[in-house]
Amino acid sequence: MINKLIENIKNTNAPIVVGLDPMMKFIPEHIKKAAFDEYGETLEGAAEAIWQFNKGIVDAVYDLIPAVKPQIAMYEQFGIPGLAAFKKTVDYCKEKDLVVIGDIKRGDIGSTSEAYAVGHLGKVTVGSKSYYGFDEDFVTVNPYLGSDGVNPFINVCKEEKKGIFVLVKTSNPSSGEFQDRKLLDADNRPLYEIVGEQVAKWGSECMGDEYSYVGAVVGATYPEQGKILRELMPKTYILVPGYGAQGGKGADLKHFFNKDGLGAIVNSSRGIIAAYTNDRYCKYGEKNYADASRAAVIDMRKDISENAL
Amino acid sequence: MINKLIENIKNTNAPIVVGLDPMMKFIPEHIKKAAFDEYGETLEGAAEAIWQFNKGIVDAVYDLIPAVKPQIAMYEQFGIPGLAAFKKTVDYCKEKDLVVIGDIKRGDIGSTSEAYAVGHLGKVTVGSKSYYGFDEDFVTVNPYLGSDGVNPFINVCKEEKKGIFVLVKTSNPSSGEFQDRKLLDADNRPLYEIVGEQVAKWGSECMGDEYSYVGAVVGATYPEQGKILRELMPKTYILVPGYGAQGGKGADLKHFFNKDGLGAIVNSSRGIIAAYTNDRYCKYGEKNYADASRAAVIDMRKDISENAL
Repeated sequence: MINKLIENIKNTNAPIVVGLDPMMKFIPEHIKKAAFDEYGETLEGAAEAIWQFNKGIVDAVYDLIPAVKPQIAMYEQFGIPGLAAFKKTVDYCKEKDLVVIGDIKRGDIGSTSEAYAVGHLGKVTVGSKSYYGFDEDFVTVNPYLGSDGVNPFINVCKEEKKGIFVLVKTSNPSSGEFQDRKLLDADNRPLYEIVGEQVAKWGSECMGDEYSYVGAVVGATYPEQGKILRELMPKTYILVPGYGAQGGKGADLKHFFNKDGLGAIVNSSRGIIAAYTNDRYCKYGEKNYADASRAAVIDMRKDISENAL
Repeated sequence: MINKLIENIKNTNAPIVVGLDPMMKFIPEHIKKAAFDEYGETLEGAAEAIWQFNKGIVDAVYDLIPAVKPQIAMYEQFGIPGLAAFKKTVDYCKEKDLVVIGDIKRGDIGSTSEAYAVGHLGKVTVGSKSYYGFDEDFVTVNPYLGSDGVNPFINVCKEEKKGIFVLVKTSNPSSGEFQDRKLLDADNRPLYEIVGEQVAKWGSECMGDEYSYVGAVVGATYPEQGKILRELMPKTYILVPGYGAQGGKGADLKHFFNKDGLGAIVNSSRGIIAAYTNDRYCKYGEKNYADASRAAVIDMRKDISENAL
């Protein structure tokens, strides 16, 4: 799947992933009205609104981008109907030949991580049959529990030719609280570097043609750290959140890429899916929210190609 | 909810939580057969088997225990039907007046953690209405992203009078890989101590009558670390996994408790729910798996009261 991700990136010339994080406040009124007219102001109604909103955006941008990243929390908050909308979104994006990165940030002890890995990337056994649960192409994984929390994901990736992105240095303001702590037993280097080295080590046995299918998450909001991590993990694909709404800019992304112009894929969520609420794209109007998203993708591609590559 | 948890513990005289982690291999054949006869060997069939299995155990032990801890991964692996069985289990346990600790180990950046918190502990807004998604009483939270990943959970807990347990030192063999790293900027103390101190700090503003509703997860498999953390977090309830199948014994738990006999609640999953597969309880037979679970709860209560309290 890492090979397909890279192929999609080369074909679209856009190292961009659109974060499908549909908060209700971003969903245009006409979509909510139609959904609530059909299902009422219920969890099912919210799920229908999310799904229609997503479908509009995917239809408008799928030819421009290699991948999407639905954030499962935004669906899970609406309970079972919300998760059904997540699954519908995953399936639809795969039909459109997009690589789907499930932003699930799971991670647990061995047997439990195995269940997550099976549920999101692999097949679960039921009697003599087996089924895909959510069937994303990649998922994000939290490393706090160490190797025996991550290895079950890697094992399923090997079987299924899929991949993971492990949290290394996250984009949020307080990511440094634990991730930046300097380690006495590692020459006073910060924890995120040690996690990054471990990711490179896990990844070295999981190589696609050019890059490993064990990737890393490093926030655009921390360009200096991105530069160091890029060097520590040369064969690791970096998923870069934090562009746009969170403050990261094209020029901040320079050092996340390798000299081959590959090695990083930049996520934007609100900046794309809620583009119509931004002054720059408000001319499209709420009804044409998906056209605003398309324009925002084109601008993001330009920003990255001119300032980061 | 921390007050209710403590009240339940006092009433049952059992600082015990039963981990409802229903792996298919633990579910007796007659339950699987009935479920597959009705729904086929499908995800729905698996979900029905899980639900019936859980119901049998809960009916057999609910009067002996204060709380249950369903591990969501074991349900999520069966996709949407699995998660519906999770929700059914949560609701049923609450009907039985058990405190429900959702072992979800979520954690993300601010707005995303807020969605998880709303979905699992609080109410989500849909138009002019609001709904509980999964509605557990407590959930487990991963601290790797720092305060702005944890605070949204705390905020929802304040509104809803619920609680969280933050991962501090997990029970798995490789938990030390990152959690034990010694920090130069904290007098060479390990990361888990710093996380523990932060948990105590978060918790100090979230007090129930005697203990905080911001708790910690510390594995029974690390008794020495448990002793240190107990002292660092005197008002923090500790959820202790790792007893039984993972190797933790009653005597290892001594230092997890405070002098008041409170402050810790010990989880056993396989040791209780799959007791019938253990030589000690196999006399009950597979059909009477729930009676075996009841016997195992009684023995666990005895072990803890004789060796740990």
